[in-house]
Amino acid sequence: MAGLLSHVSIVEVGPRDGLQNDLRSIPTETKIALIDALSEAGLPVIEATSFVNPKAVPQLADADEVMKRIRRRPGVRYPVLIPNQRGLDRAIVSGVDAIALFTSATEAFCQANIRCSIDESFERFAPVVEQALAAKMWLRGYVSVAFDCPYSGPVAPEAAIHVTERLFELGCHEVSIADTLGTATQTGVEHVVDALRSTGISLDQIALHLHDTYGQAVANVERAYDLGIRIFDSAVGSLGGCPFAPGSSGNVSTESLLRAFEARGIPTGVDLPAVERAFTMLQAGSASANEPRT
Amino acid sequence: MAGLLSHVSIVEVGPRDGLQNDLRSIPTETKIALIDALSEAGLPVIEATSFVNPKAVPQLADADEVMKRIRRRPGVRYPVLIPNQRGLDRAIVSGVDAIALFTSATEAFCQANIRCSIDESFERFAPVVEQALAAKMWLRGYVSVAFDCPYSGPVAPEAAIHVTERLFELGCHEVSIADTLGTATQTGVEHVVDALRSTGISLDQIALHLHDTYGQAVANVERAYDLGIRIFDSAVGSLGGCPFAPGSSGNVSTESLLRAFEARGIPTGVDLPAVERAFTMLQAGSASANEPRT
Repeated sequence: MAGLLSHVSIVEVGPRDGLQNDLRSIPTETKIALIDALSEAGLPVIEATSFVNPKAVPQLADADEVMKRIRRRPGVRYPVLIPNQRGLDRAIVSGVDAIALFTSATEAFCQANIRCSIDESFERFAPVVEQALAAKMWLRGYVSVAFDCPYSGPVAPEAAIHVTERLFELGCHEVSIADTLGTATQTGVEHVVDALRSTGISLDQIALHLHDTYGQAVANVERAYDLGIRIFDSAVGSLGGCPFAPGSSGNVSTESLLRAFEARGIPTGVDLPAVERAFTMLQAGSASANEPRT
Repeated sequence: MAGLLSHVSIVEVGPRDGLQNDLRSIPTETKIALIDALSEAGLPVIEATSFVNPKAVPQLADADEVMKRIRRRPGVRYPVLIPNQRGLDRAIVSGVDAIALFTSATEAFCQANIRCSIDESFERFAPVVEQALAAKMWLRGYVSVAFDCPYSGPVAPEAAIHVTERLFELGCHEVSIADTLGTATQTGVEHVVDALRSTGISLDQIALHLHDTYGQAVANVERAYDLGIRIFDSAVGSLGGCPFAPGSSGNVSTESLLRAFEARGIPTGVDLPAVERAFTMLQAGSASANEPRT
């Protein structure tokens, strides 16, 4: 193949999806240093934290301080997870200009994760989105368990894509389709992309968010790239996991994705050794990596 | 670099290290079909099962039947894990000609895993090894927690290599150095290889056994390859995990290793699509992959 292969965007979700599920006690200074190091490494998007209820997720109770103190690199986007109006209010005070909302492809997971139906999740989003768009914020939506649900089994691609369409109708600029359990296969990825193609959604607005429970995430990312997907979520050091998806592993590691794209000559704009240094720094700055995590 | 890069050997440990820790109920037929499919895929070594006490590990209570019924492909080695004399007796009846023994780099992990000191583990091995060597069996030794121990913290490379030397003195033909927790870094791999070089051990007799908790296993394998290691353990579908290493993930997936070596033009002799089909078959033949695994 002649010429450069098409560029991909890596969305680093470690500081949010990773640390949210990390039971180690991570100092605010370390979180800020991690995000700053990831910025310097050239990551174009860093999901920095979550403005969820501090009582529910004490690990991220310092979201306000983190967002006020990170060094924002020009051109880098720093979305934060927002569950409700209260979260948006806090985010605005902290100078946030990009947010992410999350719902699910299945009713059972939606109830387990955010204790409401899919319809109710959209009702909750409506005023938040209205205010965010009025403030010219950038908006990402997440569709959890788009491949398999721990409670209701295999998910029809059409069900996941229907929720995806609703997120775009709501006003999202990008939707991240998530394999929360890490059970997706290359065939499953093909089916989801086929279902996307049957809608008017541009693949440029779609991200794939893969966990790596069965070691298939890199293969799935490569398949998705070949099918036209260009945005991929990953976490430095494979951080993550989901308390509502028992047995699931962390996100595919940013390092693995960078190696896979580098091997194929696909530009990412990210400096792999700098990402590796960021992870080493995190491990050194946290409670010992040797401590059991669960 | 001109010419072909040096060949590597992939040791498939999924049927043993993977299924041993899998809480799904996997029919004996499915295990046999998995091993046969992995043989056909071209894997040179397949650790097939473990002759541990069926009361302790009921998932592998069918070890005898599995070993009697697999289709042995000429040139492929099928080692089994042996904890004691009783295990060896069963293995011999089942026609086994290659065995693996396991001890640990730390006293704390040895006690947790096999309820004895490192010295006592060697005392237990002595008669087993004598009989196995007399029967012209091939012998592998494992050194668990060679990088970090969940109970006693970071492990000095010299401690891990000292146990490695003792396994060779005992009569092992190969020793697999294990990152049971999945916390190894590229620097840690360098230190272990440095420590190995200071002994008379040939790197050709050393395998690296990496779990992928932090998504660093492929990077660590590539670093080890560059330093001269040529044998790598992995598990189809990233199966595995260790009940005595809380929070640890499965083994690095065979699929990821094959992709990484393929990208660098390093021959493995293994057919990746055939490995992928073996995993798909396993998932279809087991209890649903959607069921929580823990």
